[in-house]
Amino acid sequence: MKKTKATVLSIPSVTHGIPAYELTRQRSPATALERWLARKLLALAGNPPLRLVLWDGEEITTSTAPALASMSIRHRAALYKLFINPNLHFGDLYTAGSVEVEGNFIEFLESVYRASASKFPLLRKIQAHLFNRPRSNTLSGSSTNIHHHYDLSNEFYELWLDKEMQYTCAYFPSLAATLEQAQFAKMDHVCRKLRLRPGERVVEAGCGWGGLARHMARHYGVTVHSYNISKEQLRYARERAKAEGLSGVEYIEDDYRNISGKYDAFVSVGMLEHVGLDHYHELGDVIHRALTEHGRGLIHSIGRNHPELMNAWIEKRIFPGAYPPTLGEMMDIFEPHDLSVLDVENLRLHYAKTLEHWLMRFEQNAGTVENMFDENFVRAWRLYLAGSLASFSTGCLQLFQVVFTRGANNQIPWTRAHLYEPGTSARHDRAA
Amino acid sequence: MKKTKATVLSIPSVTHGIPAYELTRQRSPATALERWLARKLLALAGNPPLRLVLWDGEEITTSTAPALASMSIRHRAALYKLFINPNLHFGDLYTAGSVEVEGNFIEFLESVYRASASKFPLLRKIQAHLFNRPRSNTLSGSSTNIHHHYDLSNEFYELWLDKEMQYTCAYFPSLAATLEQAQFAKMDHVCRKLRLRPGERVVEAGCGWGGLARHMARHYGVTVHSYNISKEQLRYARERAKAEGLSGVEYIEDDYRNISGKYDAFVSVGMLEHVGLDHYHELGDVIHRALTEHGRGLIHSIGRNHPELMNAWIEKRIFPGAYPPTLGEMMDIFEPHDLSVLDVENLRLHYAKTLEHWLMRFEQNAGTVENMFDENFVRAWRLYLAGSLASFSTGCLQLFQVVFTRGANNQIPWTRAHLYEPGTSARHDRAA
Repeated sequence: MKKTKATVLSIPSVTHGIPAYELTRQRSPATALERWLARKLLALAGNPPLRLVLWDGEEITTSTAPALASMSIRHRAALYKLFINPNLHFGDLYTAGSVEVEGNFIEFLESVYRASASKFPLLRKIQAHLFNRPRSNTLSGSSTNIHHHYDLSNEFYELWLDKEMQYTCAYFPSLAATLEQAQFAKMDHVCRKLRLRPGERVVEAGCGWGGLARHMARHYGVTVHSYNISKEQLRYARERAKAEGLSGVEYIEDDYRNISGKYDAFVSVGMLEHVGLDHYHELGDVIHRALTEHGRGLIHSIGRNHPELMNAWIEKRIFPGAYPPTLGEMMDIFEPHDLSVLDVENLRLHYAKTLEHWLMRFEQNAGTVENMFDENFVRAWRLYLAGSLASFSTGCLQLFQVVFTRGANNQIPWTRAHLYEPGTSARHDRAA
Repeated sequence: MKKTKATVLSIPSVTHGIPAYELTRQRSPATALERWLARKLLALAGNPPLRLVLWDGEEITTSTAPALASMSIRHRAALYKLFINPNLHFGDLYTAGSVEVEGNFIEFLESVYRASASKFPLLRKIQAHLFNRPRSNTLSGSSTNIHHHYDLSNEFYELWLDKEMQYTCAYFPSLAATLEQAQFAKMDHVCRKLRLRPGERVVEAGCGWGGLARHMARHYGVTVHSYNISKEQLRYARERAKAEGLSGVEYIEDDYRNISGKYDAFVSVGMLEHVGLDHYHELGDVIHRALTEHGRGLIHSIGRNHPELMNAWIEKRIFPGAYPPTLGEMMDIFEPHDLSVLDVENLRLHYAKTLEHWLMRFEQNAGTVENMFDENFVRAWRLYLAGSLASFSTGCLQLFQVVFTRGANNQIPWTRAHLYEPGTSARHDRAA
């Protein structure tokens, strides 16, 4: 069994970005209450091996283990905010530079996630229900939520995604694979799980920049209807399919709930996170309507080991309306229509690895990103990518690929050996 | 994609076994009400392509498709019983010879299961809750329930199981594998999924006749503690391990709830069906207590695509207390302790194939079985094996293998390719 070291990425610390009026406040020393709050904050996080540095220079630690990193709190308001709702405010304070981390940022985040993972579940639940309700994913809600993130700028995503613009977990046949190879392998793994055959019809719910649809059409000879509500992504996907002369792919600007027609395969990679628990039955209805008698389906989604809301800051600033379901919650899609789960694979460490690649490319292009947006944007996205990496590497988040079919369908693969036949690697060699 | 023909097994029909007083009653012709009830019975079963033959010789069919088989109802009481609760009474009436099937028995059962699968879910629920509550699986309840089935007679099970006495779904690397090869492959598939290494400690909850424990000790060099509450199975398992000089295996007569110690792997093949939904949290507690930090676990169980009680007759006559869970229901074991599901494989067609082998061997030894018990026993077991086969081949039952580990454990296999490496088949060649 291979031990997977989460990451060794080191991120430069930023010490600027603090308004002048706060720099003067820095000198006002922390009170006894504030020092107590700082200790309590560490205790509530499970006493991770960290050093808190207050605005007056005082250092506080509650762990006997050597500190992995320092977190500087630049002013007293930041301390109070962290105390009230650390999940939400840490992100905003870090973005604004009111909180700074010195040392290995990812190890810092991992140590907090690990220490707090099993601590105070009730407190976390209360906090979540007070502050962190995910936004609604009605037809219009989804449209707003998706626009917020995916319509940012294609040029921005091109800076740090692979050439096929895969913004979902890659599949690394080996750790040595490049990001390009691993994203090719992911698309192939999905196609093999779906057992696509030339001439078949595929429907895709949420297609991103259209890479999987292009892959299926090019390498498996199927026709694809891909649904998406992000205008920027669709523009990119259509232009590229046209430029590459792929006539079998049609990108449709519409909500997954409006999918029509009958298909041999249903596929959705990285969309379920945006569907919302309340709408799983609708997604199940769509699949039931769309699949032929012997149709196969695959849903690829971020998930959880136990029910828990998305991190509050991510839901508020990065992914409005997002919720990572447990496997049990996902069954609300399948059970009402007697859909049968054939195969589940958890690829969480592959997502940690994918994020390591994205973060490295992001940091290499941080200057360009700052010119496109601003410094706060760079800091927010650094935190989002590094925090996601730490969530997957510490087991706070999972990545489930679920293969399913109709309950009475006996035209199913006899074993899963075909997923690992040599043809796969031959195909991968063609990539990148 | 290979199409799997469920079965072509033909079972001899039995026309005797009817008490003399009923033979005289047979001549009394069916009334208009009784003919209406017979039609209604077929309608409630979803109008399968079958012929009902009443005790007066009248033939009734409600399907326009050619009849696959005939079902004779030998007396009017049987018709009324079938009408009130077909799931429960069909088994008893068939066992007693009051109902007889002519034609291919398995195709007959499959046609009924297929036709009724999605029909009248509410009616089926009401019937189930009125008549079919599974018996309790408290410590003493489990003891009684397990004794009922597994302590029948080792000699009886030896007549139709493989040489390693595997009374659970086999794994056929190819359809051409013998039952012996497929059971060897199943045990190996389980060991590979658990990534067993020499010197590790394994605990097994429910060990049957001890075959998997012997396999793990012999081929993987681990020490095994195997728990079971069937005295007959334990006697067999201990004698055989002693005869084969396997010192690394200890068979323990105790309930899974009393498992103690720390282990690198937890395994349970075909026991969860007997645990009962109310006790999943206890099983989760046991696993949480037993697993080391980097321990792995595997649960292999019959399951469902949606919640539904075990067939009433099977629960009453064959497997008291049994309940096949959905994947969602199984999560009650894992979620409370943040156990992480890594891999789920559905092997339902492998169970249909396994049952085809068992039924063939059972029929070859039907005379011996009748001498050991009686004719009714042979008929009941024929129905149980054929009915189970039809349940798996029509998708009414599933077979889930679930691999899990602690949520924070990163010492997990990078991919599943190791399950399909050539070593496996080399190992299989050694079997049988």
